[in-house]
Amino acid sequence: MKAAAKATSNIAFIKYWGKKDEALRIPANSSISMNLSNAYSITSVELSKNLKKDQVYLNSKKAEEDEYTRIVKHLDLIRALAKSNLFAKVKSRNSFPKGTGIASSASGFAALTLAATKAFKLNLSQKKLSILARLGSGSACRSIPPGFVEWVKGADSKTSYAKTLYPPSYWDILDIVAIVGESKKEISSTKGHSLTGTSPFFNKRIADLPQKIKDIKKALKFKDFTKLGTIIEEEALNMHAVMLTQRPPLIYFNSSSLSIIREIYEMRKKGIEAYFTLDAGPNVHIICKAPDAPKIKKILKNQKIVKKILVNKPGNGTEII
Amino acid sequence: MKAAAKATSNIAFIKYWGKKDEALRIPANSSISMNLSNAYSITSVELSKNLKKDQVYLNSKKAEEDEYTRIVKHLDLIRALAKSNLFAKVKSRNSFPKGTGIASSASGFAALTLAATKAFKLNLSQKKLSILARLGSGSACRSIPPGFVEWVKGADSKTSYAKTLYPPSYWDILDIVAIVGESKKEISSTKGHSLTGTSPFFNKRIADLPQKIKDIKKALKFKDFTKLGTIIEEEALNMHAVMLTQRPPLIYFNSSSLSIIREIYEMRKKGIEAYFTLDAGPNVHIICKAPDAPKIKKILKNQKIVKKILVNKPGNGTEII
Repeated sequence: MKAAAKATSNIAFIKYWGKKDEALRIPANSSISMNLSNAYSITSVELSKNLKKDQVYLNSKKAEEDEYTRIVKHLDLIRALAKSNLFAKVKSRNSFPKGTGIASSASGFAALTLAATKAFKLNLSQKKLSILARLGSGSACRSIPPGFVEWVKGADSKTSYAKTLYPPSYWDILDIVAIVGESKKEISSTKGHSLTGTSPFFNKRIADLPQKIKDIKKALKFKDFTKLGTIIEEEALNMHAVMLTQRPPLIYFNSSSLSIIREIYEMRKKGIEAYFTLDAGPNVHIICKAPDAPKIKKILKNQKIVKKILVNKPGNGTEII
Repeated sequence: MKAAAKATSNIAFIKYWGKKDEALRIPANSSISMNLSNAYSITSVELSKNLKKDQVYLNSKKAEEDEYTRIVKHLDLIRALAKSNLFAKVKSRNSFPKGTGIASSASGFAALTLAATKAFKLNLSQKKLSILARLGSGSACRSIPPGFVEWVKGADSKTSYAKTLYPPSYWDILDIVAIVGESKKEISSTKGHSLTGTSPFFNKRIADLPQKIKDIKKALKFKDFTKLGTIIEEEALNMHAVMLTQRPPLIYFNSSSLSIIREIYEMRKKGIEAYFTLDAGPNVHIICKAPDAPKIKKILKNQKIVKKILVNKPGNGTEII
């Protein structure tokens, strides 16, 4: 009747931006990501006959209405699978701030999916968990399997899920997140996703992605860090170029993000091989080789605009705790 | 044997980015601009039999080698037209800082073209001056005719020139430039122009421009400021999306530019109808109706990052002084 799960968030090397099916969150393209060992959600789900409705606490506070509604909808899916009508008390907390480009919905819905299915005594395969997590939040499906992950776009709900390409131990690279802001997004990424078609560049982006995915999988296979990093940066700017040209335009990076990007260019000039990526938020993710981390952290600590530094190894998948 | 000319710079509403012919500076697309009354170059050209080579002073300093070479090349064209072998002493000064997105090469080459042709006793038509100015710096051709201008891309050098759509008095709108930086560009716009083809989005941009040009000409015709401003902002972001996705990526705006853009969004929420555009530099051009200027200037003056404010009416064409 009670279960708790821990799920890491993930950073996309090839991004998920735009959906083929809005309601089922089937993406317009496959994507590639790495789980983030230190950016996680821990979520507990407790069922009780005494509850008359679901109760949801996020970071020790009652969930706001829109969050509550989305989580109850996800619990409804799981109740239907379990043929149960029990309500749940859900408590979830994140190791990182919300709404800043670290996908709290990814780790949150991955952890919720595993904890809730366990509480309802469902025993689902990793594939089925990934599909179910996707229905809660697209990128959550990538947080179910461990390590370096591919979310295969699929043709329908049953074939759109994520699987491990390589385990966390495969490659000793890091994602150092320079946290520069905690402000809420003016336009949520869910809303932004639904407007990708308004960018004149979206179709071209989608047409080019299969080749880019082939290339990055090759870079992963041969541990070609320069190739990997180059593709990661181009891909981030490609997605943000689409965002900039949507109606309304989405400018998710801010002044601090740009300063960090310029700092990364300087690092490379000094021989520190680091690359950036940005999600739908201002924080800059710095992808680097593990031995370079101390130098990079030192440089970031000298930047006043950096409020916090989060160092992530390739993370595990979602696990019961 | 001596002549001086004054040329205003111009701000493009529809941008020039990418060339069909590199050497002749024939653009990939037609563009639309407004001359800027307060951003100008004054250039004098004095011929002398005593000179053994051209002398060039920019803002009271000897021109650097690359600037010198480019200006001498332009003088060579004019010497050839005039069938003369006299050398010139060129002095030019700008009313605004160089290399920051206000096109100093536009006003500079427009003024040089008129002053030098006059000094060499050539009497060229506005069309011929525009073609000649284009050979020095593409956007300079738009600074030759007055007011609101269209640079028709043309099919070859003889048909690629700019002409007035409406005189300066036609519409009482302003370009308020928020000058946030004076740093030199890491990559010049000439170099950036030659790499537009490396963006996956460049061809789509070019394919969409004829319709956009039709739309903005209609907005000018009917003085539809909302339509004009909306197209101007979309167009700026469209060009910068192409720049972001070139190899190497070009990020011409900086942290201050982004802060001003957010400030403009706030202005609109408060009912001040202002729109932004950005050239290949960090300064933000704020297009507004004249009666709103005092409110906008007051808001900008409260921004520490704004180093200078330059208010421009629709400007004249290039004139002998």
